[in-house]
Amino acid sequence: MDHELFSEERSAEVVAASFASAPPRLRELLTSLVTHLHAFVKETGLTAQEWEQGIAFLTAAGHKCDDVRQEFILLSDVLGVSMLVETINHRTAGGSTESTVTGPFHVVASPSRALGDSISLDGKGEPCLVTGQVTGPDGEPVPGASVDVWQASADGFYDVQQPGIQPERNLRGLFTVDADGRFWFNTIVPRYYPIPDDGPVGGMLHAAGRHPFRPAHVHFIVTAPGHQTVTTHLFVAGSPYIDSDAVFGVKESLVRSFPLVNDPARAAEHGLPNPFRTVHFDVRLLRAQDAPAPAGD
Amino acid sequence: MDHELFSEERSAEVVAASFASAPPRLRELLTSLVTHLHAFVKETGLTAQEWEQGIAFLTAAGHKCDDVRQEFILLSDVLGVSMLVETINHRTAGGSTESTVTGPFHVVASPSRALGDSISLDGKGEPCLVTGQVTGPDGEPVPGASVDVWQASADGFYDVQQPGIQPERNLRGLFTVDADGRFWFNTIVPRYYPIPDDGPVGGMLHAAGRHPFRPAHVHFIVTAPGHQTVTTHLFVAGSPYIDSDAVFGVKESLVRSFPLVNDPARAAEHGLPNPFRTVHFDVRLLRAQDAPAPAGD
Repeated sequence: MDHELFSEERSAEVVAASFASAPPRLRELLTSLVTHLHAFVKETGLTAQEWEQGIAFLTAAGHKCDDVRQEFILLSDVLGVSMLVETINHRTAGGSTESTVTGPFHVVASPSRALGDSISLDGKGEPCLVTGQVTGPDGEPVPGASVDVWQASADGFYDVQQPGIQPERNLRGLFTVDADGRFWFNTIVPRYYPIPDDGPVGGMLHAAGRHPFRPAHVHFIVTAPGHQTVTTHLFVAGSPYIDSDAVFGVKESLVRSFPLVNDPARAAEHGLPNPFRTVHFDVRLLRAQDAPAPAGD
Repeated sequence: MDHELFSEERSAEVVAASFASAPPRLRELLTSLVTHLHAFVKETGLTAQEWEQGIAFLTAAGHKCDDVRQEFILLSDVLGVSMLVETINHRTAGGSTESTVTGPFHVVASPSRALGDSISLDGKGEPCLVTGQVTGPDGEPVPGASVDVWQASADGFYDVQQPGIQPERNLRGLFTVDADGRFWFNTIVPRYYPIPDDGPVGGMLHAAGRHPFRPAHVHFIVTAPGHQTVTTHLFVAGSPYIDSDAVFGVKESLVRSFPLVNDPARAAEHGLPNPFRTVHFDVRLLRAQDAPAPAGD
């Protein structure tokens, strides 16, 4: 026979050899996948019953997916795979703001807003002034930058989860920074919330004794001509679950306190009640040509 | 913070720590799974686009699954995972007939037949006499044994794939061996066939330059009181794809030649036209109490 037959000892090598004619990158991916899958089965001594449960889990996850629900992304999220892929594809080498996962709620375009506008359309929650500056790697202002923000409400829901309860596009905004790269807007302090946990992934978390919550955060995507895009979060220091995010999105460098400020003049200047919360978030971008080592190198 | 935050370097350890409260076996499985998934991502430098393609692949596989189609089992099959799980859960230590995958076509009960009956209900194909003996590990006959057989037709299809074309239960039979553990029946020589390849798994095989075919074989499940069940195949020596089974099911010890016999008296004895094909397949069972090391030990 031309090909080596299957054996327990050489199982991964035999299967990998079947990909000899695949295009190089596909061959590399499938070989690594098969090597690790077979090592997992051998290390754990996976039983036939556990294999059946695995097949049933994947099938149920597939059947849970539709236009508005992506159970396999949730699975990737709670196993830290999404965060790992994001991290290795956006290594910063300390030169720029760290990235984190996009999450599943950036499903509608954020409405364009003027600097200083409020993105809270119903005024529900604790008022908060967000300020910051977009710079390049040497601290130079980036005047052309766009800042796209979206967040959950004070009750822990995104607008798209509560049609008819929250106004459309509530707590979303697309800003252009000023000539100094600065941005500022009003919002409310978001609340922590659970990822959708009524499917197989939620069942797995429950069986494993894990909670489904994410700590309070504001999403940012910052883009500018000639610079690399940063997709990240601003996390609320002291939020419940800040040290046990269900999707492992928290990085120390992204956590900020939201202090309560008693300053009637500043409140009036920004159209806010006094006192109000504040947070400052500077975003540093890498230049497009200064890409860190691509993933895999 | 009580818990270590996510980092590229320690990603698998951080995620594994989240399963600290899981029941021991689930914790073991998830820890190994996460360790290998993260190693796969890091080794390959998986790009965000490749991750998205992976999510889309799993989603399409899930949507392909229904009552009669199991795309995740096919995926497990073509990656050699099914064969590996079967093998580590039925180690023979050389004391019994080797096992192989059950496959997806044992979906209806085989009809009870008398020794010597033909399981070919339409007579289409090359006639073949199958003989064999079921014994224990020391060669002693096992008179109470049941032999469940099913196979594809001379065109490479199972009855359930061709309702209205093949008779119901064509090429399936359940036999009880005689006092010497012997069994014999008439059938036709099966043909090689492709696994269902019109879904995402077929797409993957195509992209990887692999064919979807399985070499010709007859399925056996042999059971007897006081003995361990063997699920296996009898492979036709010289069949196309005998050394490149799409699901890696072939083991050297399971391949037999099907020689053409010219013996008018024997043909008449078995109600077969002359000449006819023959094959002999002895099946050796382990005693129930002589289980080999369970998987994982």
